[in-house]
Amino acid sequence: MPRYAFKIEYDGAPFVGWQRQANLSSVQGTLEAALAKVGEVGKVQAAGRTDTGVHALGQVGHYDAARDWDPFRLSEAVNFHLKPAPVAVTECARVPDDWHARFSAQRRHYRYRIASRRAPLTHAVGKFWRVGHPLSVPAMRVAAQTLLGTHDFTTFRSTMCQADSPVKTLDAIEISEHPYTAGIEYRFEVTARSFLHNQVRSLVGTLERVGVDRWTPEDVRSALEARDRAACGPVAPPDGLYLVHVDYAHDPFA
Amino acid sequence: MPRYAFKIEYDGAPFVGWQRQANLSSVQGTLEAALAKVGEVGKVQAAGRTDTGVHALGQVGHYDAARDWDPFRLSEAVNFHLKPAPVAVTECARVPDDWHARFSAQRRHYRYRIASRRAPLTHAVGKFWRVGHPLSVPAMRVAAQTLLGTHDFTTFRSTMCQADSPVKTLDAIEISEHPYTAGIEYRFEVTARSFLHNQVRSLVGTLERVGVDRWTPEDVRSALEARDRAACGPVAPPDGLYLVHVDYAHDPFA
Repeated sequence: MPRYAFKIEYDGAPFVGWQRQANLSSVQGTLEAALAKVGEVGKVQAAGRTDTGVHALGQVGHYDAARDWDPFRLSEAVNFHLKPAPVAVTECARVPDDWHARFSAQRRHYRYRIASRRAPLTHAVGKFWRVGHPLSVPAMRVAAQTLLGTHDFTTFRSTMCQADSPVKTLDAIEISEHPYTAGIEYRFEVTARSFLHNQVRSLVGTLERVGVDRWTPEDVRSALEARDRAACGPVAPPDGLYLVHVDYAHDPFA
Repeated sequence: MPRYAFKIEYDGAPFVGWQRQANLSSVQGTLEAALAKVGEVGKVQAAGRTDTGVHALGQVGHYDAARDWDPFRLSEAVNFHLKPAPVAVTECARVPDDWHARFSAQRRHYRYRIASRRAPLTHAVGKFWRVGHPLSVPAMRVAAQTLLGTHDFTTFRSTMCQADSPVKTLDAIEISEHPYTAGIEYRFEVTARSFLHNQVRSLVGTLERVGVDRWTPEDVRSALEARDRAACGPVAPPDGLYLVHVDYAHDPFA
């Protein structure tokens, strides 16, 4: 059975998340239903099991096909049957049988987008976390420094998290400012080999408190060292979160 | 009656356009209904009467209020009652009684966004015209040159257009390329004192034919000189069109 890798983009708003759940609309279920319409009945394994409402620009999955496909034709056929769901295969490639979307992944890149302005959003509803106040990027950068590297991230982990260990290594948290109509966009680019459940949203929600000067960077360090979920700041909503890219030793789409 | 200027942002998709129409959902009607909820019963006059499905980032309107308002409080009150419609007042200012959103306007800036990629859009459905092929920016720029300046734009005008004269002066058509996930964005920035009905969409639809090498820049010149609606290329869909900014001698929001 030839194995194919998909790069997958989706608007997470209408879905319970990546993972298939009985009687609920999931990205995985939607994609597998489209595959079934071209005679391909099987499971798609993904690099990141994104949560309810979380978006993807570069989710990666793999699928073992019943027959040989030209990769471009397979992606076109699947996209045809995905419509009108807001899910699309943007790349498709043949990969070796031992290549695994999840276990071969070396690093995940997430983006979190905050739009700061008074007026409600009209053009990107559900695609940003809107806050009504400006944030201090320098203060958030100082606080982010304390989170980089290898730590026990129990504070920044959902109580539902099923990972064996709360110890993770954060490679980067880059924070930048961008123009946004009648406001400012704050963008967080967060990179790690893997993440705990709700980790990015917990980190961003806590950094936002620093940006608005309710928390000091020192408070963030204390929260991390507490290793206690109760010490976490508010969890940022899923609206602003995007799985942007997954790194592999050999990029199947290069 | 104190006069206020509004800067207005909207997603045009759910509306029949700016202008109020009986029993149909319009931006003007939605805004006037929100004003009525704060005791302000009257008409909003706009700089540009955008068409069905056309978006705005910087539409400008004016309104004669029944009472004195702090401009910020007026905008907050209107935004509260506009929810959940995708319309928001992003700026509000007191203006002189003889200031008129439409007649005081010196120039209108429209943007047209094309997303070129094979996969259907998932994150910006209704916000771009998606085409499946790349476009030649240099060829479109050459063709755009022939359209600049003062011309009889009968070819690029809807047969429904009610303007007295088909003669307009195009100040600028700037075409640029931007990254778009799994594709390319082509952005057209078009500026004039005023436009004919469907003029921007007619121009962009014609330039797209040049970008894909079906028309030559010389064909565009011939189409313009024909002064005949039948000589126009396809009209680009409203999805990609945005009223971005309106220039006034004295910017009320500066």
